[in-house]
Amino acid sequence: MSLVIVGSVAFDTLETPRGRREKIVGGSGTYCSLAASFFTKPLVVAVVGEDFPKEMIEFFKSRGVDTRGLEVRPGKTFHWEARYGEDPNQRTTIKTELNVFEDFMPQLPPDYRKADIVFLANIDPDLQGDILAQAEAPKLVAMDTINLWIKTKRASLLRVLEKVDIYFANDEEIKMLAKETNLIKAGKKILEMGPSLVVIKKGEHGALVLGENFIFGVLAHPCEEVVDTTGAGDSFAGAFLGYLDKVNAFEKEEKIRKASVYGSVLASFVIEDFGINRFKTLSLQEIENRFRLFKKLVSF
Amino acid sequence: MSLVIVGSVAFDTLETPRGRREKIVGGSGTYCSLAASFFTKPLVVAVVGEDFPKEMIEFFKSRGVDTRGLEVRPGKTFHWEARYGEDPNQRTTIKTELNVFEDFMPQLPPDYRKADIVFLANIDPDLQGDILAQAEAPKLVAMDTINLWIKTKRASLLRVLEKVDIYFANDEEIKMLAKETNLIKAGKKILEMGPSLVVIKKGEHGALVLGENFIFGVLAHPCEEVVDTTGAGDSFAGAFLGYLDKVNAFEKEEKIRKASVYGSVLASFVIEDFGINRFKTLSLQEIENRFRLFKKLVSF
Repeated sequence: MSLVIVGSVAFDTLETPRGRREKIVGGSGTYCSLAASFFTKPLVVAVVGEDFPKEMIEFFKSRGVDTRGLEVRPGKTFHWEARYGEDPNQRTTIKTELNVFEDFMPQLPPDYRKADIVFLANIDPDLQGDILAQAEAPKLVAMDTINLWIKTKRASLLRVLEKVDIYFANDEEIKMLAKETNLIKAGKKILEMGPSLVVIKKGEHGALVLGENFIFGVLAHPCEEVVDTTGAGDSFAGAFLGYLDKVNAFEKEEKIRKASVYGSVLASFVIEDFGINRFKTLSLQEIENRFRLFKKLVSF
Repeated sequence: MSLVIVGSVAFDTLETPRGRREKIVGGSGTYCSLAASFFTKPLVVAVVGEDFPKEMIEFFKSRGVDTRGLEVRPGKTFHWEARYGEDPNQRTTIKTELNVFEDFMPQLPPDYRKADIVFLANIDPDLQGDILAQAEAPKLVAMDTINLWIKTKRASLLRVLEKVDIYFANDEEIKMLAKETNLIKAGKKILEMGPSLVVIKKGEHGALVLGENFIFGVLAHPCEEVVDTTGAGDSFAGAFLGYLDKVNAFEKEEKIRKASVYGSVLASFVIEDFGINRFKTLSLQEIENRFRLFKKLVSF
């Protein structure tokens, strides 16, 4: 039982119709490992600068996240700035300052080389490949990516894709990667390129999960007050993989279905407040209650 | 047990990536009543010109549609021309020739004035109001509309909305009508304007159903070969109301949930071929089989 998450731990500056937040803690590794921490004790592998708040590292630890893979380096933490439109799906990146992330060489602590699950969150596919090479016979490898790498590093990305079991993508990304506008066809194309499972995240429309012999659809929780959608997809993946690690199951359809619902549940919580704020107060009880609501939402 | 459908019976000329079709039979009344005909014997109220094919009227009859409300008038049938992009949600209207529809004064045959269910498909809201006035104490009134009327006849539309029980809309339409970008909030706003149920159709993402005390989400069937999405929304509404008419239930949550799934099922069939072609071969057995697949699609 061990889950390794390689991603970014960063500062985000966000402008949304609900307000502006300067340099709040974000990053795919952050959202993913915090969401996973409700199910298991993940290891986060990332690099931050000396300006990264120690309280945040303490918060990771308090949630059971193993931070031995979180390197602190001289320099500044990765900083991303974005603006959201009235429709929270409309997001424009204003600035990306890589800072210490520029020379990031992710290292797996020795006792994590035999980890069961390795998640390659959205970072440069070459780095994803590096870290994957350090893992010894993981039972499950998952990856996420963004349009930037699909456009600029397609070949590297396809090499990583070949080696993973689960590919997480949003609808726009999978259409671009598969060069196919029909989501089901796009998903099936990816299933021929390596992964045995494709998880297509569709924001307010939920997610579609395509396995080799099944399709599962999960809705998004009907949220009336969407404050900040940053990290929703990473939280989905974190909860999904955290749940699989907890139940020690990697390919069972029944567990994949439940994992997807927990993914949608955690994504639905994180968007209720800015950044990771909602995770500070979230309880297991709330998660289980919402899980049950998801059953009611689709029962007929 | 009686369902009245007022809508358009028309010729559609469609240009899609799958080919072009000239003047095939379409219209909201057509799709809606044919979809409903798998559950009940609906009456269709519309007007066509003398150029409308008699075989089509025979086909309506063979499916159990009562065509006494289908007036044949000197002149040409309503003709709509549209072009679809690679993404079937991108549709551009090229031409609208109202023809005999221009002076359409819908009349309810006397024995239908006591109909249980009246569906006002997407036609001019003033006509919707006229026909509603001819109905005597219907148990359920439903309506649909399009952006055109929301933009040009908002006041008339709101007057009809006040009097209906169910409002069918797609996501773009309901956002425009409610002046609200969050779908759940938009739906709740409409629930304060008359209807006790709002059905938001979201194309490939399925539909959301908002009642006064519940929310239900139904997925779209994962279709790989989408040929022509024309009439999918009308088929949804037709199956939904046809099922409610069949089971003689108008407000029971359990029946509303099942009706929504049948709506999604019929919509998923009609898009598999051009126009109403798929309805020519569709069997009840196929409908029930797909209904069961929908259960599997969301079970966890």
